[in-house]
Amino acid sequence: MATVLERRDDLAAAMERIGQAARAAARELATASRPRKDRALEGAALALRRATDAILDANQRDVEAAQAAGTSPAMLDRLRLDPARIEAMAAGLEAIATLPDPVGRVLAAWERPNGLAIERVATPLGVVGVIYESRPNVTADAGGVCLKAGNAVILRGGSESFHSARAIADALHAGLAAASLPVDAIQFVPTTDRAAVGHLLAMDRHVDVLVPRGGRSLVERVRAEARMPVFSHLDGVCHVYLHQAAEAAMAEAIVVNAKLRRTGICGAAETLLVDRAMAADLLPSILAALHDAGCELRGDATVQALNAAVLPATDADWAAEYLDAILAVKVVDGLDDAIAHVNRWGSHHTDCIVTADEQAARRFLAEVDSAIVLHNASTQFADGGEFGMGAEIGIATGRLHARGPVGVEQLTTFNYRVRGTGQTRPV
Amino acid sequence: MATVLERRDDLAAAMERIGQAARAAARELATASRPRKDRALEGAALALRRATDAILDANQRDVEAAQAAGTSPAMLDRLRLDPARIEAMAAGLEAIATLPDPVGRVLAAWERPNGLAIERVATPLGVVGVIYESRPNVTADAGGVCLKAGNAVILRGGSESFHSARAIADALHAGLAAASLPVDAIQFVPTTDRAAVGHLLAMDRHVDVLVPRGGRSLVERVRAEARMPVFSHLDGVCHVYLHQAAEAAMAEAIVVNAKLRRTGICGAAETLLVDRAMAADLLPSILAALHDAGCELRGDATVQALNAAVLPATDADWAAEYLDAILAVKVVDGLDDAIAHVNRWGSHHTDCIVTADEQAARRFLAEVDSAIVLHNASTQFADGGEFGMGAEIGIATGRLHARGPVGVEQLTTFNYRVRGTGQTRPV
Repeated sequence: MATVLERRDDLAAAMERIGQAARAAARELATASRPRKDRALEGAALALRRATDAILDANQRDVEAAQAAGTSPAMLDRLRLDPARIEAMAAGLEAIATLPDPVGRVLAAWERPNGLAIERVATPLGVVGVIYESRPNVTADAGGVCLKAGNAVILRGGSESFHSARAIADALHAGLAAASLPVDAIQFVPTTDRAAVGHLLAMDRHVDVLVPRGGRSLVERVRAEARMPVFSHLDGVCHVYLHQAAEAAMAEAIVVNAKLRRTGICGAAETLLVDRAMAADLLPSILAALHDAGCELRGDATVQALNAAVLPATDADWAAEYLDAILAVKVVDGLDDAIAHVNRWGSHHTDCIVTADEQAARRFLAEVDSAIVLHNASTQFADGGEFGMGAEIGIATGRLHARGPVGVEQLTTFNYRVRGTGQTRPV
Repeated sequence: MATVLERRDDLAAAMERIGQAARAAARELATASRPRKDRALEGAALALRRATDAILDANQRDVEAAQAAGTSPAMLDRLRLDPARIEAMAAGLEAIATLPDPVGRVLAAWERPNGLAIERVATPLGVVGVIYESRPNVTADAGGVCLKAGNAVILRGGSESFHSARAIADALHAGLAAASLPVDAIQFVPTTDRAAVGHLLAMDRHVDVLVPRGGRSLVERVRAEARMPVFSHLDGVCHVYLHQAAEAAMAEAIVVNAKLRRTGICGAAETLLVDRAMAADLLPSILAALHDAGCELRGDATVQALNAAVLPATDADWAAEYLDAILAVKVVDGLDDAIAHVNRWGSHHTDCIVTADEQAARRFLAEVDSAIVLHNASTQFADGGEFGMGAEIGIATGRLHARGPVGVEQLTTFNYRVRGTGQTRPV
């Protein structure tokens, strides 16, 4: 393959072979038993630990090239591996092995008056394509989640993490081989040629769904060009709404955690909404706490009047995903106004209401059109692990099939299995 | 609207307004109670019955235009309405009203160690676009199913059924108005301009999923051009496989019914596979019965040797959806060969095994990659009504979200509703 890919005009043919091999492996993996899949995951964890030195060497090559290219410290941190991070990957694969098998679950079963017994049974999706950027650990996480759900996966890592990701993929292959499963079930695109992404996006015959993991420009390109469905989210413009019946201490704790626990994750709050009736009571302490913690504040006139540090907000702030210690703050005229603001300006990702009023909470959870809606809990819980799903391959804000955290169950589809005793359909 | 649409350059703006109005109505419909939705369905049924004369007049205009254009008798039959067909539409809407509300179902619920209570709750998909051809009754069926699931719908009928479909849509609007629901929830594209379809396919901001109902060329175009997900099937190349343990009388009854009950529906069998070990025992009587019933037979050499009327089959026959009284017949070398044939040549729609061997049936149902797999029952049961789902908007062979019959439940998505008591996420 490496020699083939030296000639760019052979790239299309090489990608086609990768797709065909993934499809063939997916058929075999679809009926693999849980013990075999788990043995492959455990074997991959073992191989990762054994290959620690080789993976660190490969990672060193990537890091040096990135440093020479003047890469930002934040990206270098995402790229860099150490023994603890490799152990975390291995432990992650073992944790996936302990999850129940999502394949074969009977999702529904009923009998018809004519005696036909109908079951809806979970089956693998088929072939999943994953396009990611600088984090080499996505190789193990995505490979493991797809394997557990009986899917083949085509992994296309970023050029900056190429050697690290390839070394990790080698360990996954060792796991598959140890369980006598087809190594083609985990395909690593063995080239940094950017044109490979274009081929992958067009391979709808061989790839059933694509998962982009990375920055906004990657996600936008995949959504625009992919000829197959995409599980993704573009933004996490998450809101905390303090309803007039919010309890003050709880409100402050949730706002500070939702905004500042980690500012760079998609579940971090970006906008705070406060009922006008309680703004003067609730906000001063919260704004001071945020400001003392180093958070920049941008607000409307009412909010600015409550704290001298608040900068003026514009409409652009209501749509902004800062991914930084900045919070937009707005006063709203009650529940309807808050719901309308979230549905207009939000990104349908994760939004929270803080209130002691059960009726208001029920309406917010039902009427806010987001993948995750919370009552009296931080938006930072928007995470498959926190939901108890085990590993996730990403968070989706689309409306079809997968919404919210995408874990092993969301990487399955289903078919209808109908058992009869010779029934024919009357004319 | 009618005057706006007289100028073609205003079509884009008019379609945009239709999309915006549908989106706004969808938000209102999403939280409508079951009684209001059911009242709208019952009101629409009443309005249809009251408007019988007006609908028949409108249909007469369509039929006369179609006759003048030299339309085929089959298409004229699909187009023509009579009082019984209008009554069937009204009864269909009343039947949809009796279905349980698919919105608000708690699909899963669990609690986390930190006390967070998580529910996955069914919510409407949003806005559904339906593009159909000559059958005016799709207007009522699709409108009713979408309404029940809390979705707004944009209906684009064929030009040949334009006046009939518009008259039916008027009755649906009367039902919505009687229940004080927004009439914009059911949008009928008020023009026969073919360019409207192109606009609809590009309106991914306002349309969440498209359902094409019609011939192969329509479905192919929608799949190729739509910028949003599509629920559809291109072919129904359905198989009946007679395993060596098939019981002879049951095998014959199922094959004859699967092929000939109705030849023009997507669940009609197109290929018969027979285990070599039993071909000489099972086939002669079945081939004779089919031939006597007027079915053309095309087979491989072994099959031809068993009945002089069997024409030679080519590879094209294994991929053919005849939708006619023609059956391709092939001898296979056991279960593995049969499964491989179905997965290679089939259309992932509906396939059946006839056998008394439970083990063989279990493997066929698990390994055939089709939306519906049956054991000892006719493929003609591939139908939402026969599944007990009530009305269906179509049958999907895609792997994501909806697979098999698409009824009211399949026209919903879900969100996660998380209830806490002030939980914040530890650092």
